[in-house]
Amino acid sequence: MTHALASKNPLWRAALLTICAIAAVMTISLPIDKLNAASKVSHFKLTNGMEVVVIPDHRAPVVTHMVWYRVGAADEPRGASGIAHFLEHLMFKGTDKVAPGEFSKIVARNGGQDNAFTGHDATAYFQRVARDRLPLVMEMEADRMVNLKLLEKDVVTERKVILEERRSRVENDPSNILSEQMNAALYQSHPYGIPILGWEHEMRALDREKALKFYERYYAPNNAILIVAGDVTADEVRKLAQETYGKIPANADRVRDPRPVEPRHRAPIRVNLDDPRAGRATVQRLYLAPSYTTAEPGEAEALDLMMKVLASGSTSRIYRALVVDKKIAASAGGWFSGTGLDAGRMGVYAVASDGADIADVEKALDAVIADFIENGATQKELDRARNSYIASHIYGGDSQSRLARRYGWGLVNGRTIADIEEWPERLNKVAVEDLQKVAKKYFDLSQSVTGVLRPVDVKNADSKKAKDGKTKS
Amino acid sequence: MTHALASKNPLWRAALLTICAIAAVMTISLPIDKLNAASKVSHFKLTNGMEVVVIPDHRAPVVTHMVWYRVGAADEPRGASGIAHFLEHLMFKGTDKVAPGEFSKIVARNGGQDNAFTGHDATAYFQRVARDRLPLVMEMEADRMVNLKLLEKDVVTERKVILEERRSRVENDPSNILSEQMNAALYQSHPYGIPILGWEHEMRALDREKALKFYERYYAPNNAILIVAGDVTADEVRKLAQETYGKIPANADRVRDPRPVEPRHRAPIRVNLDDPRAGRATVQRLYLAPSYTTAEPGEAEALDLMMKVLASGSTSRIYRALVVDKKIAASAGGWFSGTGLDAGRMGVYAVASDGADIADVEKALDAVIADFIENGATQKELDRARNSYIASHIYGGDSQSRLARRYGWGLVNGRTIADIEEWPERLNKVAVEDLQKVAKKYFDLSQSVTGVLRPVDVKNADSKKAKDGKTKS
Repeated sequence: MTHALASKNPLWRAALLTICAIAAVMTISLPIDKLNAASKVSHFKLTNGMEVVVIPDHRAPVVTHMVWYRVGAADEPRGASGIAHFLEHLMFKGTDKVAPGEFSKIVARNGGQDNAFTGHDATAYFQRVARDRLPLVMEMEADRMVNLKLLEKDVVTERKVILEERRSRVENDPSNILSEQMNAALYQSHPYGIPILGWEHEMRALDREKALKFYERYYAPNNAILIVAGDVTADEVRKLAQETYGKIPANADRVRDPRPVEPRHRAPIRVNLDDPRAGRATVQRLYLAPSYTTAEPGEAEALDLMMKVLASGSTSRIYRALVVDKKIAASAGGWFSGTGLDAGRMGVYAVASDGADIADVEKALDAVIADFIENGATQKELDRARNSYIASHIYGGDSQSRLARRYGWGLVNGRTIADIEEWPERLNKVAVEDLQKVAKKYFDLSQSVTGVLRPVDVKNADSKKAKDGKTKS
Repeated sequence: MTHALASKNPLWRAALLTICAIAAVMTISLPIDKLNAASKVSHFKLTNGMEVVVIPDHRAPVVTHMVWYRVGAADEPRGASGIAHFLEHLMFKGTDKVAPGEFSKIVARNGGQDNAFTGHDATAYFQRVARDRLPLVMEMEADRMVNLKLLEKDVVTERKVILEERRSRVENDPSNILSEQMNAALYQSHPYGIPILGWEHEMRALDREKALKFYERYYAPNNAILIVAGDVTADEVRKLAQETYGKIPANADRVRDPRPVEPRHRAPIRVNLDDPRAGRATVQRLYLAPSYTTAEPGEAEALDLMMKVLASGSTSRIYRALVVDKKIAASAGGWFSGTGLDAGRMGVYAVASDGADIADVEKALDAVIADFIENGATQKELDRARNSYIASHIYGGDSQSRLARRYGWGLVNGRTIADIEEWPERLNKVAVEDLQKVAKKYFDLSQSVTGVLRPVDVKNADSKKAKDGKTKS
């Protein structure tokens, strides 16, 4: 029931929180290599329209079973933000066959683990179990696809849980508050600007009726993708799927409506948050960018590689300039999020070192970007970035659950199995000039939101600002 | 078919453009004085639920006839921004009885004038005619309430008209581009952030089907208010209304859905636009504020008076400080917009004088606000502001169309006739401390968007910014 993948670096975590999809940058960017087991992936549909992907992996007698629904926080009715995530929690509240709260206990009693997560574009449920328990989890997952029973008391209790989740994740963490505000400013029209957890006042109004309405509107086999990775064959899965999910009738109305297209922005936006709970001062910037689904051919691959060179890890341009050379920042980096049905995003950030002025940190960050736009990357940098992706893609292939997520994110965002599998070849087609080209095109301040977080007491900051005319706010 | 009232001051116009409702600050703020004819206002409902307001005014044998629909740009389906305003245009395209484009010609041939406008909360149609032509315009208006016929070719032509309207009003005017961006940033969730004219790419996709769907959903007698001001009696209007609008059946489904409640913002936002077409550099700021409909008792009245003292006209605090004393600004002012079904807004602005740095202008503006928060207004200032409202309210009572609009805006935004008429008494209850109190409460930077427009060539600005690290963007 986590709604975003965790990460060790707290700044990354901040960037991750409100856009769950960002987690997928690590997933979708690491597709199947021909060398590993997953190259024999099967993809077919049940007669009711449910998609099925089988990823054979016979190294151990375990399976990862996931069901992805093509619905997420960006599909919520206006004013009911958080309902997709709330429903994800409520999906553990039982059916006629499974008592409230028993779902995870049954999985655990059978030696397995389970969880779920919600993004802007998808909601997914998964279990990892011994291969002989696959029929059990398929039956249970198919059961709650249409037979969810919600007791008013369970709904009320769970609403407290999601409010507490918001309190601890967002309200207790100024960098997450700022991220939420930045994200809201980054989208003038598209619902990606609405937090996945929901706006608090709307979360308080979420109820049984709204959850069931959303459930009945979107949860159906023909709006879902089944992914099974592990010690099974496609034939086994097809038979089991037909006996469980296959018995549920299709419903054409379950397909989500298209979302509004974000208008092109006309001017840069800044959001400044002063909060005494903040650690060091930080600057972050988000840029609108295309996703793998919406980009011109080759652009998303170039963006992935460009951000790797520029901003990922301790050998990146930004890290070397700000942390190693100038020692103006304690950490610095960036990312490109290429998943997203309707759009991607990219972001850069830096944490000021002791005594450094955050305005100088931002200047230094911008200088690195400006230099990259002017001079581009070297072939060596490109090769290293590409090799790094290939390596982590191979390691990613070793993880059953990462493989399953890779196909899930890809399909749910409108890509094909071929798109997902041919990614390394497409990476290989990116030329060093392409990195400079996408940097020039997408590091466009008019399409950005810059956020500055300062560890300043708001009251002091206010009187300071009143005195100096608030020019920095 | 104008969608916002014009104003002589181009900066005011800029502020007015995207929020049509602001026009109503001049309207709703000037209610009926007991001295003028309008104190005998009648208010009743037809059997089909259509509200009727009659404002007798026998000084001349003319009438102002308005129909207000309780639907506006904030009620548009996601992705179809501009449909309310587009439909307003298409309402002139004819019925079985009135040929396309003939509506206004018939009114003109009968010696009258007509027009229409669209706001976020309302769409209104009005005619001013000789009293004996009232039956004619009522029949025609009732006819197009339900019998609109749209030819594909007329829809295509009119779409070009609204796109040209957008081009000339917004795209040609950087201050309006900035206003649109600021407004989009001011609302994270509420549809008041969507421009009334629509986002251009969505306007291009507006079509006959969308227009008719919106029309059928919202245009009905029980979602409309008829206002007749002029040389008529309530009995005459009631009889005529029953014979025209009264014949149209009610439809309970026509009532609009509630809009999302804007979450409380957490940090100040800035939007900077550099455009070589801009005249002098300007700074504007918008603050979220309550409206007469949503404010605590007395607050909206205090906000109206406070902004009058602080920012309206050449005797205001802001004008005197920036234009007269410091000579740092060529003009400066502000406004409170207290209409709005779900929220109000307030704004301040200043135009730099030749040679003045816009950052200094902003500092000076903030210093005036900070001083007001600290020291408040004087009794003399309050009295002068109140007298000014009373005076313009009396003059406003002389204008038939202003009177009609005053009642229209009031009712459409959920106020009662008594609310509208008792406004002067409520103004009288505002104490001088109340002005300081609302200034302190609502001049909250965390609930604001600041916009800076500079007459700078974007290419030069970009290279300049790249050099100085974009700290000013």
